[in-house]
Amino acid sequence: MELLDQATARAWLATAVTEARAGLAEGGIPIGAALYGADGTLLGRGRNRRVQDGDPSLHAETAAFRAAGRRRSYRGTTMVTTLSPCWYCSGLIRQFGISRVVIGEAVTFTGGHDWLAEHGVEVVLLDDPGCVGLMRGFTKDHPDLWNEDIGE
Amino acid sequence: MELLDQATARAWLATAVTEARAGLAEGGIPIGAALYGADGTLLGRGRNRRVQDGDPSLHAETAAFRAAGRRRSYRGTTMVTTLSPCWYCSGLIRQFGISRVVIGEAVTFTGGHDWLAEHGVEVVLLDDPGCVGLMRGFTKDHPDLWNEDIGE
Repeated sequence: MELLDQATARAWLATAVTEARAGLAEGGIPIGAALYGADGTLLGRGRNRRVQDGDPSLHAETAAFRAAGRRRSYRGTTMVTTLSPCWYCSGLIRQFGISRVVIGEAVTFTGGHDWLAEHGVEVVLLDDPGCVGLMRGFTKDHPDLWNEDIGE
Repeated sequence: MELLDQATARAWLATAVTEARAGLAEGGIPIGAALYGADGTLLGRGRNRRVQDGDPSLHAETAAFRAAGRRRSYRGTTMVTTLSPCWYCSGLIRQFGISRVVIGEAVTFTGGHDWLAEHGVEVVLLDDPGCVGLMRGFTKDHPDLWNEDIGE
Protein backbone atom coordinates (compact mmCIF):
# COMPACT_ATOMS: atom_id res chain seq x y z
CA MET A 1 0.00 0.00 0.00
CA GLU A 2 1.32 3.46 -0.86
CA LEU A 3 2.02 5.91 1.92
CA LEU A 4 -0.77 8.40 2.40
CA ASP A 5 0.24 12.01 1.78
CA GLN A 6 -0.75 14.61 4.36
CA ALA A 7 -2.95 16.57 1.95
CA THR A 8 -5.06 13.51 1.20
CA ALA A 9 -5.24 12.55 4.87
CA ARG A 10 -6.45 16.07 5.74
CA ALA A 11 -8.99 16.10 2.89
CA TRP A 12 -10.38 12.74 4.00
CA LEU A 13 -10.51 13.91 7.62
CA ALA A 14 -12.59 16.90 6.47
CA THR A 15 -15.30 14.44 5.34
CA ALA A 16 -15.36 12.88 8.81
CA VAL A 17 -15.40 16.32 10.47
CA THR A 18 -18.39 17.35 8.33
CA GLU A 19 -20.20 14.27 9.64
CA ALA A 20 -19.22 15.07 13.23
CA ARG A 21 -20.46 18.65 12.95
CA ALA A 22 -23.75 17.48 11.41
CA GLY A 23 -24.14 15.13 14.38
CA LEU A 24 -23.54 17.97 16.83
CA ALA A 25 -26.16 20.10 15.03
CA GLU A 26 -28.65 17.24 15.46
CA GLY A 27 -27.98 17.10 19.20
CA GLY A 28 -25.86 13.99 18.79
CA ILE A 29 -22.38 12.90 19.78
CA PRO A 30 -19.95 14.73 17.45
CA ILE A 31 -17.90 11.89 16.03
CA GLY A 32 -17.74 11.30 12.29
CA ALA A 33 -16.10 8.76 10.03
CA ALA A 34 -15.65 7.78 6.40
CA LEU A 35 -14.41 4.67 4.61
CA TYR A 36 -12.24 5.26 1.55
CA GLY A 37 -11.29 2.69 -1.07
CA ALA A 38 -7.76 1.88 -2.18
CA ASP A 39 -8.25 4.16 -5.20
CA GLY A 40 -9.49 7.06 -3.05
CA THR A 41 -13.19 6.53 -3.75
CA LEU A 42 -15.49 7.41 -0.85
CA LEU A 43 -17.24 4.12 -0.03
CA GLY A 44 -19.33 5.26 2.92
CA ARG A 45 -19.60 7.98 5.53
CA GLY A 46 -21.49 8.32 8.78
CA ARG A 47 -21.71 9.66 12.28
CA ASN A 48 -22.53 8.45 15.74
CA ARG A 49 -26.31 7.91 15.90
CA ARG A 50 -26.91 7.04 19.56
CA VAL A 51 -29.04 10.11 20.21
CA GLN A 52 -30.58 10.56 16.77
CA ASP A 53 -31.74 6.94 16.29
CA GLY A 54 -31.59 5.68 19.86
CA ASP A 55 -29.14 3.13 18.45
CA PRO A 56 -26.13 2.34 20.64
CA SER A 57 -24.61 0.10 17.95
CA LEU A 58 -23.94 2.93 15.53
CA HIS A 59 -20.68 4.56 16.39
CA ALA A 60 -19.29 6.77 13.61
CA GLU A 61 -17.03 4.03 12.24
CA THR A 62 -19.74 1.37 12.22
CA ALA A 63 -22.13 3.85 10.56
CA ALA A 64 -19.59 4.52 7.78
CA PHE A 65 -18.91 0.77 7.44
CA ARG A 66 -22.65 0.10 7.20
CA ALA A 67 -23.12 2.86 4.61
CA ALA A 68 -20.45 1.23 2.42
CA GLY A 69 -22.68 -1.83 2.09
CA ARG A 70 -21.63 -5.43 1.58
CA ARG A 71 -18.09 -5.84 0.24
CA ARG A 72 -16.04 -8.89 -0.54
CA SER A 73 -12.79 -7.37 0.73
CA TYR A 74 -11.54 -4.34 2.63
CA ARG A 75 -7.95 -4.72 1.48
CA GLY A 76 -6.45 -1.31 0.83
CA THR A 77 -9.33 0.59 2.41
CA THR A 78 -8.90 3.41 4.93
CA MET A 79 -11.19 4.17 7.85
CA VAL A 80 -11.04 7.88 8.67
CA THR A 81 -12.41 8.93 12.03
CA THR A 82 -12.40 12.16 14.02
CA LEU A 83 -11.50 10.29 17.25
CA SER A 84 -9.30 7.34 18.23
CA PRO A 85 -11.49 4.25 17.64
CA CYS A 86 -12.89 2.55 20.75
CA TRP A 87 -12.43 -1.23 21.20
CA TYR A 88 -15.69 -1.90 19.40
CA CYS A 89 -14.60 0.08 16.33
CA SER A 90 -11.01 -1.14 16.57
CA GLY A 91 -12.36 -4.69 16.52
CA LEU A 92 -14.32 -3.85 13.38
CA ILE A 93 -11.18 -2.55 11.66
CA ARG A 94 -9.15 -5.62 12.64
CA GLN A 95 -11.80 -8.22 11.84
CA PHE A 96 -12.55 -6.94 8.37
CA GLY A 97 -8.96 -6.31 7.41
CA ILE A 98 -9.30 -2.57 6.87
CA SER A 99 -5.73 -1.62 5.98
CA ARG A 100 -5.35 1.86 7.38
CA VAL A 101 -6.94 4.16 9.95
CA VAL A 102 -6.64 7.96 9.86
CA ILE A 103 -7.45 9.49 13.25
CA GLY A 104 -8.32 13.13 13.91
CA GLU A 105 -7.17 13.04 17.52
CA ALA A 106 -6.43 10.72 20.42
CA VAL A 107 -6.08 13.38 23.13
CA THR A 108 -9.61 13.41 24.56
CA PHE A 109 -10.00 9.62 24.28
CA THR A 110 -7.60 6.80 23.44
CA GLY A 111 -9.10 3.59 22.12
CA GLY A 112 -7.42 0.64 20.44
CA HIS A 113 -5.25 2.25 17.78
CA ASP A 114 -1.94 1.03 19.28
CA TRP A 115 -3.38 -2.51 19.27
CA LEU A 116 -4.34 -2.07 15.61
CA ALA A 117 -0.81 -0.94 14.77
CA GLU A 118 0.56 -4.06 16.53
CA HIS A 119 -1.67 -6.14 14.27
CA GLY A 120 -0.52 -4.62 11.01
CA VAL A 121 -2.96 -1.75 10.50
CA GLU A 122 -1.30 1.46 9.30
CA VAL A 123 -2.21 4.19 11.79
CA VAL A 124 -2.06 7.87 10.82
CA LEU A 125 -2.66 10.15 13.81
CA LEU A 126 -3.25 13.75 12.76
CA ASP A 127 -3.58 15.51 16.15
CA ASP A 128 -6.11 17.94 14.69
CA PRO A 129 -7.00 20.88 16.98
CA GLY A 130 -10.48 21.19 15.46
CA CYS A 131 -11.28 17.58 16.38
CA VAL A 132 -9.92 18.09 19.89
CA GLY A 133 -12.05 21.21 20.29
CA LEU A 134 -15.21 19.41 19.15
CA MET A 135 -14.81 16.66 21.74
CA ARG A 136 -13.60 18.96 24.55
CA GLY A 137 -16.69 21.11 24.13
CA PHE A 138 -19.03 18.15 23.90
CA THR A 139 -17.68 16.13 26.82
CA LYS A 140 -17.72 19.24 29.04
CA ASP A 141 -21.37 19.93 28.19
CA HIS A 142 -22.61 16.32 28.12
CA PRO A 143 -20.41 14.10 30.29
CA ASP A 144 -23.20 11.56 30.94
CA LEU A 145 -23.94 11.08 27.26
CA TRP A 146 -20.29 10.59 26.47
CA ASN A 147 -19.81 8.07 29.30
CA GLU A 148 -22.86 6.18 28.06
CA ASP A 149 -21.40 6.03 24.56
CA ILE A 150 -18.19 4.40 25.74
CA GLY A 151 -19.76 2.28 28.47
CA GLU A 152 -18.13 4.07 31.38
CA MET B 1 -21.23 -11.68 39.96
CA GLU B 2 -22.69 -15.11 40.76
CA LEU B 3 -21.49 -18.11 38.82
CA LEU B 4 -23.86 -19.09 36.04
CA ASP B 5 -25.39 -22.55 36.44
CA GLN B 6 -25.33 -24.84 33.43
CA ALA B 7 -29.14 -25.05 33.17
CA THR B 8 -29.43 -21.27 32.85
CA ALA B 9 -26.54 -21.12 30.38
CA ARG B 10 -28.22 -23.78 28.21
CA ALA B 11 -31.62 -22.07 28.43
CA TRP B 12 -30.08 -18.76 27.38
CA LEU B 13 -28.19 -20.44 24.57
CA ALA B 14 -31.50 -21.83 23.30
CA THR B 15 -32.67 -18.24 22.70
CA ALA B 16 -29.58 -17.58 20.59
CA VAL B 17 -30.03 -20.88 18.70
CA THR B 18 -33.64 -19.96 17.91
CA GLU B 19 -32.32 -16.72 16.37
CA ALA B 20 -29.65 -18.60 14.41
CA ARG B 21 -32.19 -21.07 13.01
CA ALA B 22 -34.55 -18.25 12.05
CA GLY B 23 -31.64 -16.64 10.18
CA LEU B 24 -30.90 -19.86 8.33
CA ALA B 25 -34.58 -20.16 7.33
CA GLU B 26 -34.36 -16.62 5.89
CA GLY B 27 -31.33 -17.57 3.79
CA GLY B 28 -29.01 -15.77 6.17
CA ILE B 29 -25.89 -16.62 8.14
CA PRO B 30 -27.00 -18.84 11.05
CA ILE B 31 -25.53 -17.04 14.05
CA GLY B 32 -27.78 -15.82 16.85
CA ALA B 33 -27.26 -13.92 20.07
CA ALA B 34 -29.06 -12.54 23.08
CA LEU B 35 -28.20 -10.05 25.82
CA TYR B 36 -29.39 -10.92 29.33
CA GLY B 37 -29.49 -8.61 32.32
CA ALA B 38 -27.93 -9.30 35.70
CA ASP B 39 -31.35 -10.45 36.99
CA GLY B 40 -31.87 -12.82 34.05
CA THR B 41 -34.16 -10.51 32.06
CA LEU B 42 -33.84 -10.82 28.28
CA LEU B 43 -32.74 -7.33 27.19
CA GLY B 44 -32.38 -7.94 23.45
CA ARG B 45 -31.97 -10.74 20.91
CA GLY B 46 -30.93 -10.81 17.29
CA ARG B 47 -29.25 -12.60 14.45
CA ASN B 48 -26.74 -11.87 11.72
CA ARG B 49 -28.48 -9.70 9.11
CA ARG B 50 -25.87 -9.43 6.34
CA VAL B 51 -28.03 -11.24 3.79
CA GLN B 52 -31.48 -10.22 5.02
CA ASP B 53 -30.80 -6.47 5.28
CA GLY B 54 -27.66 -6.17 3.16
CA ASP B 55 -26.09 -4.80 6.35
CA PRO B 56 -22.54 -5.94 7.11
CA SER B 57 -22.52 -4.16 10.47
CA LEU B 58 -25.13 -6.41 12.03
CA HIS B 59 -23.47 -9.49 13.37
CA ALA B 60 -25.63 -11.48 15.78
CA GLU B 61 -24.08 -9.87 18.86
CA THR B 62 -24.36 -6.31 17.53
CA ALA B 63 -27.98 -7.02 16.52
CA ALA B 64 -28.80 -8.20 20.07
CA PHE B 65 -26.95 -5.19 21.54
CA ARG B 66 -28.90 -2.85 19.26
CA ALA B 67 -32.21 -4.51 20.16
CA ALA B 68 -31.49 -3.89 23.85
CA GLY B 69 -31.55 -0.13 23.16
CA ARG B 70 -29.67 2.59 24.99
CA ARG B 71 -28.48 1.61 28.45
CA ARG B 72 -26.46 3.46 31.05
CA SER B 73 -24.47 0.40 32.09
CA TYR B 74 -23.84 -3.19 31.03
CA ARG B 75 -22.46 -4.26 34.39
CA GLY B 76 -23.64 -7.77 35.19
CA THR B 77 -25.03 -8.42 31.70
CA THR B 78 -24.33 -11.56 29.70
CA MET B 79 -23.93 -11.76 25.93
CA VAL B 80 -24.98 -15.19 24.71
CA THR B 81 -23.90 -16.18 21.21
CA THR B 82 -23.99 -19.37 19.19
CA LEU B 83 -20.40 -18.83 17.96
CA SER B 84 -17.14 -17.48 19.39
CA PRO B 85 -17.35 -13.70 18.93
CA CYS B 86 -15.19 -12.22 16.16
CA TRP B 87 -12.90 -9.26 16.92
CA TYR B 88 -15.66 -6.81 16.06
CA CYS B 89 -18.08 -8.39 18.53
CA SER B 90 -15.35 -9.03 21.10
CA GLY B 91 -14.51 -5.34 20.91
CA LEU B 92 -18.16 -4.51 21.56
CA ILE B 93 -18.21 -6.73 24.67
CA ARG B 94 -14.99 -5.21 26.03
CA GLN B 95 -15.82 -1.57 25.27
CA PHE B 96 -19.25 -1.64 26.88
CA GLY B 97 -18.18 -3.63 29.92
CA ILE B 98 -20.48 -6.60 29.29
CA SER B 99 -19.53 -8.87 32.19
CA ARG B 100 -19.95 -12.34 30.76
CA VAL B 101 -20.11 -14.12 27.41
CA VAL B 102 -21.75 -17.53 26.92
CA ILE B 103 -20.56 -19.18 23.71
CA GLY B 104 -22.25 -22.07 21.90
CA GLU B 105 -19.06 -23.24 20.21
CA ALA B 106 -15.57 -22.16 19.19
CA VAL B 107 -14.71 -25.17 17.02
CA THR B 108 -15.70 -23.88 13.58
CA PHE B 109 -14.38 -20.37 14.29
CA THR B 110 -12.34 -18.86 17.10
CA GLY B 111 -12.62 -15.13 17.63
CA GLY B 112 -11.50 -13.00 20.54
CA HIS B 113 -12.87 -14.83 23.57
CA ASP B 114 -9.45 -15.60 25.08
CA TRP B 115 -8.63 -11.90 24.80
CA LEU B 116 -11.88 -11.09 26.58
CA ALA B 117 -11.02 -13.51 29.38
CA GLU B 118 -7.62 -11.81 29.76
CA HIS B 119 -9.46 -8.51 30.18
CA GLY B 120 -11.77 -9.69 32.92
CA VAL B 121 -14.81 -10.94 31.00
CA GLU B 122 -16.20 -14.25 32.33
CA VAL B 123 -16.21 -16.70 29.42
CA VAL B 124 -18.50 -19.75 29.44
CA LEU B 125 -17.80 -22.06 26.50
CA LEU B 126 -20.52 -24.69 26.06
CA ASP B 127 -19.16 -26.74 23.15
CA ASP B 128 -22.68 -27.39 21.90
CA PRO B 129 -22.94 -30.01 19.12
CA GLY B 130 -26.07 -28.38 17.68
CA CYS B 131 -24.23 -25.06 17.24
CA VAL B 132 -21.26 -26.84 15.64
CA GLY B 133 -23.61 -28.64 13.25
CA LEU B 134 -25.32 -25.41 12.21
CA MET B 135 -22.03 -23.74 11.27
CA ARG B 136 -20.47 -26.85 9.69
CA GLY B 137 -23.46 -27.22 7.38
CA PHE B 138 -23.57 -23.53 6.54
CA THR B 139 -19.87 -23.00 5.87
CA LYS B 140 -19.78 -26.11 3.66
CA ASP B 141 -22.72 -24.87 1.58
CA HIS B 142 -21.81 -21.16 1.52
CA PRO B 143 -18.06 -20.69 2.00
CA ASP B 144 -18.01 -17.35 0.13
CA LEU B 145 -20.74 -15.85 2.25
CA TRP B 146 -19.02 -16.96 5.43
CA ASN B 147 -15.66 -15.56 4.33
CA GLU B 148 -17.34 -12.27 3.44
CA ASP B 149 -18.89 -12.10 6.91
CA ILE B 150 -15.54 -12.40 8.68
CA GLY B 151 -13.54 -10.41 6.13
CA GLU B 152 -11.45 -13.33 4.86
